[in-house]
Amino acid sequence: MGIELVELTPDRVVATMHVEGNTQPYGLLHGGASVVLAETIGSVAASINAGPGRFAVGTDINATHHRSVTQGTVTGVATPLHRGLTMGSYEVAIVDNGDRCICTARIACALIERDPGPTRQA
Amino acid sequence: MGIELVELTPDRVVATMHVEGNTQPYGLLHGGASVVLAETIGSVAASINAGPGRFAVGTDINATHHRSVTQGTVTGVATPLHRGLTMGSYEVAIVDNGDRCICTARIACALIERDPGPTRQA
Amino acid sequence: MGIELVELTPDRVVATMHVEGNTQPYGLLHGGASVVLAETIGSVAASINAGPGRFAVGTDINATHHRSVTQGTVTGVATPLHRGLTMGSYEVAIVDNGDRCICTARIACALIERDPGPTRQA
Amino acid sequence: MGIELVELTPDRVVATMHVEGNTQPYGLLHGGASVVLAETIGSVAASINAGPGRFAVGTDINATHHRSVTQGTVTGVATPLHRGLTMGSYEVAIVDNGDRCICTARIACALIERDPGPTRQA
Repeated sequence: MGIELVELTPDRVVATMHVEGNTQPYGLLHGGASVVLAETIGSVAASINAGPGRFAVGTDINATHHRSVTQGTVTGVATPLHRGLTMGSYEVAIVDNGDRCICTARIACALIERDPGPTRQA
Repeated sequence: MGIELVELTPDRVVATMHVEGNTQPYGLLHGGASVVLAETIGSVAASINAGPGRFAVGTDINATHHRSVTQGTVTGVATPLHRGLTMGSYEVAIVDNGDRCICTARIACALIERDPGPTRQA
Repeated sequence: MGIELVELTPDRVVATMHVEGNTQPYGLLHGGASVVLAETIGSVAASINAGPGRFAVGTDINATHHRSVTQGTVTGVATPLHRGLTMGSYEVAIVDNGDRCICTARIACALIERDPGPTRQA
Repeated sequence: MGIELVELTPDRVVATMHVEGNTQPYGLLHGGASVVLAETIGSVAASINAGPGRFAVGTDINATHHRSVTQGTVTGVATPLHRGLTMGSYEVAIVDNGDRCICTARIACALIERDPGPTRQA
C-alpha cells in the first residue's frame, strides 16, 4: 500500500500514503485504504505505548469519510485518547495535500501480555 | 436526563449532565447516557450549521468509553469535523469533573431539506 | 426511559421501550434513546455470558439509524457475535411495531475479573 | 489485495481474500485488510442497489475484530440492513476457513445522483 512512517513517538504517530495505487474503480482513494492507514498507525501508537511486556491488538475501528481525494499523498496522524493498562484508544485524522480532513477514525486496542496464562486469551 | 446546554455556537456546542440519576445498576454512569449526551449536542451542532432550509438527522454514531465515573457532572463538547451540504460530522469529547476524558464519540448527520421532493427521503 | 426486559437468555436478550417520553424536539424517537436501549441489552447479554467471576463493561458502541419512528413501542434484540474470555461483542437490532428495522448497533464489552490484580485494571 | 467476488446479487454480495499477503508484522491478517474487504463488498452491494441514476459512496464504516487468523482464505458476506433513497447500510460478516466469525462490520453509504445539482454535493 506504500504506507511510510514519518514520525514515531508515544504521543504522535504520523505516516503518509500515496493516493495513486490505492484507488477504487472511480479513481477516488479507496475508503478501505484510509482505514488501513488508520488501523496501521493507531496500532503502532498502541504498541509503542503498550510497554515491553504487552502487545496491542486492534479490536474496534470506525471511520467517517468526509471528502474524496483523487491524487497526491494523504497524511495520517494518530494521537492517544486513552492509555490504560489493558485497553488503549487512539484518534486518527487523515488530511490531503491541501490539509483538508478527508477521514476521521478511532481505534481501540486490547493490550495483551506476551505470555498469557490460560485465562487471559481474548 | 438533565442535559443542560451551556454554550451554543456553530464551532462549539457544550452541555453538562449529572451522573446521579443516569447510572446503571453498579452505580457507574450508564454508557448509554454518555451516548445520549453525545448524540444530543452533536445533533444540535449539526442543526446550527445546517442553515435555515435544512434540518439535521443523526445517521451514524459511535462511542468509545475510556473510564468509568461515579459522581459529579460530566461535560460534553461537540466540534465540527466536516460541514458539507448534505452531510455533517461532529466529534464529541466528554470529560468528568477532573477534566479526564471518559468518552469520545463521533456523529454523522444527514442534512435534509425542509420540504423534500419525492426522491429526497432517506 | 421505560426499558422493559422481556427475554433473558445467554443467546438472546430482548427488551421493549416506548417511543413516547423518549423523543427529541421534532417528535421522533431520540437516536440516543435507541443507543441506550442497545447498550443496555448488549451489556446485559455480555454480563449473562461473562460467568460468575467476571462482569462486563461496555467499551465500544456504534449505531446506524435507518428510519425515524414517532409512536408505539420499539423492540431491541441482542445476540452474541463473539463470546471470548476477556471480550464479548453483541449485535443489536431494533424494530418498530411494524417490524421494520429502525436501528442496528454493535457493542463490545470488556470482561473484568471481580477481584482484579494490580495489572488488570483497564 | 487479491479480493475475488464470488456472488453478486442485490441481497447478497460475497467475496474471498487470501490471508497470505495481507498480514501485519506478527503474521496475523491485518485488521485493515478485513476492513478493506468489508468496505469493498459493502460498497458494491450499495452500488447494485442504488439503481442506474445514482452511485454509492461509503461515508461511515465500523468493524469489530473478534479473532485473529494466520492462514487460508477469509470470506466476507454483505447483506442489506436498509435500502433507502439517499442512504443505504450493509452488514458484513467475515469468516475464516473453519466458518468462525473473525470480523463484523457495518457500512453506511450515501447514494449520490450521477448529475447532481448545485445543492446536492456532500
